[in-house]
Amino acid sequence: MTRNANIDPAARSTDILPPCVILCEPQLGENIGTAARAMANFGLRDLRIVRPRDGWPSEKARAAASRADHVIDAVKVFDTVEEAVADLSFVFATTARMREVAKPVRGPDEAAETLVAHGARGAATGYLFGRERWGLNNDEVALANEIVTLPVDPDFASLNIAQAVLVCAYEWRTKANAGALPFRLDETVNPPASKDDLIRLFEHLEGALDGVNFFRPPERRPSMVRNLRNIFQKASLTDQEVKTLRGVIAALERRPTRPHDGGEAADAGDTGDTATD
Amino acid sequence: MTRNANIDPAARSTDILPPCVILCEPQLGENIGTAARAMANFGLRDLRIVRPRDGWPSEKARAAASRADHVIDAVKVFDTVEEAVADLSFVFATTARMREVAKPVRGPDEAAETLVAHGARGAATGYLFGRERWGLNNDEVALANEIVTLPVDPDFASLNIAQAVLVCAYEWRTKANAGALPFRLDETVNPPASKDDLIRLFEHLEGALDGVNFFRPPERRPSMVRNLRNIFQKASLTDQEVKTLRGVIAALERRPTRPHDGGEAADAGDTGDTATD
Repeated sequence: MTRNANIDPAARSTDILPPCVILCEPQLGENIGTAARAMANFGLRDLRIVRPRDGWPSEKARAAASRADHVIDAVKVFDTVEEAVADLSFVFATTARMREVAKPVRGPDEAAETLVAHGARGAATGYLFGRERWGLNNDEVALANEIVTLPVDPDFASLNIAQAVLVCAYEWRTKANAGALPFRLDETVNPPASKDDLIRLFEHLEGALDGVNFFRPPERRPSMVRNLRNIFQKASLTDQEVKTLRGVIAALERRPTRPHDGGEAADAGDTGDTATD
Repeated sequence: MTRNANIDPAARSTDILPPCVILCEPQLGENIGTAARAMANFGLRDLRIVRPRDGWPSEKARAAASRADHVIDAVKVFDTVEEAVADLSFVFATTARMREVAKPVRGPDEAAETLVAHGARGAATGYLFGRERWGLNNDEVALANEIVTLPVDPDFASLNIAQAVLVCAYEWRTKANAGALPFRLDETVNPPASKDDLIRLFEHLEGALDGVNFFRPPERRPSMVRNLRNIFQKASLTDQEVKTLRGVIAALERRPTRPHDGGEAADAGDTGDTATD
């Protein structure tokens, strides 16, 4: 899934300092690894672990990271959350339940906006994640500026830690590079048809339909023409697609003279497509 | 992580028909299960599987779903993608690489907006996901209205299927219920302090500091007072926090008369906190 030719350079945003991810007392190496992979997917690099139960390094973590080796190799291990956050200027504590603490609670989108604003100034920030079983304690939450929680279905709120990391990392990248995708519809390869070409397509189709007495009764012709034109306007046709459709109409017009072309009209739509993968 | 008292009712959105998720030829039961769990986290219920390699039902899928049994129990299995999408009116094909196909490419946020608009009218919609190894073929993509891709780091673009499902489901729910979180800072339990209470706190603090000749030289007093007041304005203090701080100031003022209170000023900040979990 990584063969991406012609990547949009805007999708390679590196100007904004990404937040770090701090995992507090994770039990399973697999969770550390999948968290590292989720970070790498969205351009986060700085993974910090406080007292991992099974020690560090962890081969299970490396295997689960699916080649996010640059994140695994750079992991820093700490004895306390205080040390892990010491160099950060803004920290979100992630929690899945209401706390008896008077601290603002944000969604991942709002949290990302805050951390992007800090990162744009070069300030170091982080997301603090709790234990698999019971999250963070209140002393740990007290080290954070604000709380982030996910807009889950309250009746099925339990997220795996790597899933929570993924959503936070996804939102950070979305906000950091204004949602730039690695690729979009390439309008240089697939330029949209000009209105002039579209109108000639319309006139070609309408002429062909006149030839087979399609518009009946004649007084309904104007509204039927409008309906047809609206169908093709909605399809946002490309240059090539207009050519394909004109080929379709020409083929159908000449159908009586080409007895080998016995297909349905719909089949002719395949003509001219280059469906390579 | 599911103990959530006082859930915000707005977080239980059910008016909008959620999209279904179609997995095309998934190889691993674990991936089906973690996809089901991700769906359940964000309120999606309709999981459809086309030709699962290891058949169905799958105990591995159920185990990996972590109690998302309502999704697993309702899974529908199909022989073809055509059958799986037959009743849907709008389908996004998910793909991680540029296609030679003239179809709009959207981010998960844009795709969610489209599907929420359809779902609000009760129209059935879906996300179509490809195989673990090589995604969807072009004939399958041709069954979709548009393409959705994730704003990943182009240099580490490989996502697990359940991770891709999670991001799409998260964005759907965020758009469907306007980002309503299960809980926010509860301002009925933690009402913000009135400006009147704040001003009395300021005056208490400034009076105490006058008493120890803190403001030196006297002509700097106005700007020092403003700085102090700004510190506490930024903290968005609650009613209870103002009371706590007034207790702190009173304790510090009386320090000479309470020799047992030998702590640093910062320690006194703990007074009055109820850090229960």
